[in-house]
Amino acid sequence: MANCIVAQSGGPTAAINATLAGVIHGALLSSIDKIYGAVNGIEGVINENLVVLNEKFDSHENLNILLQTPSSYLGSCRYKLPSDSEEIFQKIFKVFENNDIKYFFYIGGNDSMDTVLKLSKYAEKINSDVKVMGVPKTIDNDLPCTDHTPGFGSAAKYIANTVREICCDSSVYDLKSATIIEIMGRHAGWLTAASVLAKDEGTNAPHLIYLPEVPFDTEDFIKKVKEISDREGNVIICVSEGIKNADGEFICEEASSGLVDNFGHKCLSGTAKVLENLVRDRLKIKARGVEVNVSQRCASHIASKTDIEESFKIGKEAVSFALMGHTGEMMVFKRKKKGPYTIRIESESIENAANKEKCVPLEWIEDASLTIDAVNYLKPLIEGETQPIFENGVIKVIRR
Amino acid sequence: MANCIVAQSGGPTAAINATLAGVIHGALLSSIDKIYGAVNGIEGVINENLVVLNEKFDSHENLNILLQTPSSYLGSCRYKLPSDSEEIFQKIFKVFENNDIKYFFYIGGNDSMDTVLKLSKYAEKINSDVKVMGVPKTIDNDLPCTDHTPGFGSAAKYIANTVREICCDSSVYDLKSATIIEIMGRHAGWLTAASVLAKDEGTNAPHLIYLPEVPFDTEDFIKKVKEISDREGNVIICVSEGIKNADGEFICEEASSGLVDNFGHKCLSGTAKVLENLVRDRLKIKARGVEVNVSQRCASHIASKTDIEESFKIGKEAVSFALMGHTGEMMVFKRKKKGPYTIRIESESIENAANKEKCVPLEWIEDASLTIDAVNYLKPLIEGETQPIFENGVIKVIRR
Repeated sequence: MANCIVAQSGGPTAAINATLAGVIHGALLSSIDKIYGAVNGIEGVINENLVVLNEKFDSHENLNILLQTPSSYLGSCRYKLPSDSEEIFQKIFKVFENNDIKYFFYIGGNDSMDTVLKLSKYAEKINSDVKVMGVPKTIDNDLPCTDHTPGFGSAAKYIANTVREICCDSSVYDLKSATIIEIMGRHAGWLTAASVLAKDEGTNAPHLIYLPEVPFDTEDFIKKVKEISDREGNVIICVSEGIKNADGEFICEEASSGLVDNFGHKCLSGTAKVLENLVRDRLKIKARGVEVNVSQRCASHIASKTDIEESFKIGKEAVSFALMGHTGEMMVFKRKKKGPYTIRIESESIENAANKEKCVPLEWIEDASLTIDAVNYLKPLIEGETQPIFENGVIKVIRR
Repeated sequence: MANCIVAQSGGPTAAINATLAGVIHGALLSSIDKIYGAVNGIEGVINENLVVLNEKFDSHENLNILLQTPSSYLGSCRYKLPSDSEEIFQKIFKVFENNDIKYFFYIGGNDSMDTVLKLSKYAEKINSDVKVMGVPKTIDNDLPCTDHTPGFGSAAKYIANTVREICCDSSVYDLKSATIIEIMGRHAGWLTAASVLAKDEGTNAPHLIYLPEVPFDTEDFIKKVKEISDREGNVIICVSEGIKNADGEFICEEASSGLVDNFGHKCLSGTAKVLENLVRDRLKIKARGVEVNVSQRCASHIASKTDIEESFKIGKEAVSFALMGHTGEMMVFKRKKKGPYTIRIESESIENAANKEKCVPLEWIEDASLTIDAVNYLKPLIEGETQPIFENGVIKVIRR
């Protein structure tokens, strides 16, 4: 018997279940017997909270619904394995042994790759033949070694479409106004950068795009907003939640330090709200902050077909790689340097991938916008529309 | 020569341009010569800021892109015609005369119907033969005389899908948590009611739905959240932004009166934020407020096919009705009482429609949820998916 466990970890995306579907599909086609899902990530392994996935997903219908179900079908966790205690590792490998586990697939972001690193090192240490493979996912696109991360393309497509729609919404009145759209990203500005794709030949909107990679200069911002509103009336600005001033302070913290509401709660204004107030104050024009909410990471109804297909494939390939003997690695996308967009799936040593962060290259950020190189990088990732299955007008999802 | 003017007013929706497309299409097929669009609603008439629409939209391609373009193609205004001065009316009817206008179509909500009422009364008074017709639109669904309003179905579909996706997103961790989703609606709770459509056979989420029609009882709310989180772990709550306590005070104002930030701005917490803090305080569980943003009124990528088709038809019918001699009326939907969902398009005297508000019937609201009658009313309105045209992964829109 050779069984496997697959688990999901970290924040949800619209594509993490596509990768799970890929792992399940790959395993079903392979010599692997039982495909276990661990409930709530590595915690499900530790507690031996496992569900068998073979029968349920040996059906095209269920697999297709899994492909379009946002968030983590198996549940998630934020558990970080300890560096200084062997007990947990012994427990995990005991569960592996009890269940004839030969392969462990962990789908997740930065922290999850740390788990893959530690488990594979421990396997090596105890001479276990369990293969441990990481499969990346994150809407933040901040993992190294890979051209991009599964899940990012769908989030980026949501942002590009939503920003274009908000640009239409924000320009209906004949007056000077500023709309500030706040997008997820504390350290890496990839998702905010994707708002550049909302531009088309008919508009310069969004006019200004600010990423955390470059210090935010309030005076220069006000000057630019004034210039554009004088010329065009309505100004659309996209900002990462994590933009900081030259001293490295978050803009949202700068404004709201010490602020407490009637119930005594700290009232931390969002970045968009802070800039909204600033623009209204300084320029005396209509201003509105729009915080794009969790939909940016779970709006599977507007997923990128490219992303969903690639996320499925990278999961499937992870199974092939593990069966070929790979372990202690993260699956990655490599983009062909020349010609039309082509992706090759490979793997990299987990040591190169874990606990590192990849930001937007500074040379791609120019004058509160993105260069053509950035656009060329981003564009193929949001290409194509999936055809989700709806029931009574609402997207179908599958639950444990 | 018999020309017409069409204009749009009030807040944008995903379907207001479908109605515009219907008016244009109807007029192109009729004896009407020039089809003028007034830029920025009635202000465009007053200032004679008119654009000719015939050639641009005598193409299926442009008409189809207009159908899927959110917000108001012609721009909008919030201008209310005065009750006590004739000057503006003389100016408007002079513009009508100068341009051989025989028909005026005004697409809008409550305030716009007031404009239709006043213009048609004035036309009667001066014996003008200009026909003035109102075509409803609003995501709020709060206009009387019509089964529902164009634009509501698409907003409701966005809410149902987004809430289902957020339900998936919010339930990944194995802990007690509450997610409070705030939906537009200051007085009428129709859009929040639509969140009930996010339920399917696999889940009770959203577990609690609160509309402004019923006073919000904080203690009962806390009790219910506790019960559900004890039983199920994750609780999903949908609230209208406009929920009020028994004294008629907005919940969001109750908490944040007098609160001012470092720059001296009044810091009005949203309703979701207030309830988030309340739940965290009282129940000591993880809580998160999610404010659904302007996307609920402009997300044309997830428009309801039923809504877009009906919105187009009601615009086209408005032209037929005006040509038959109707004036001083609002176009309405009448639903067949029995059998499968069927809509008839009729018209009603504008006096019955203007300046009135339709709320969710109290008998449809039950124990922080909606009855089956409400579900049966709402369900057909979000049915069907449009097939938007995308370019480079982003929905195509058309601009003036």
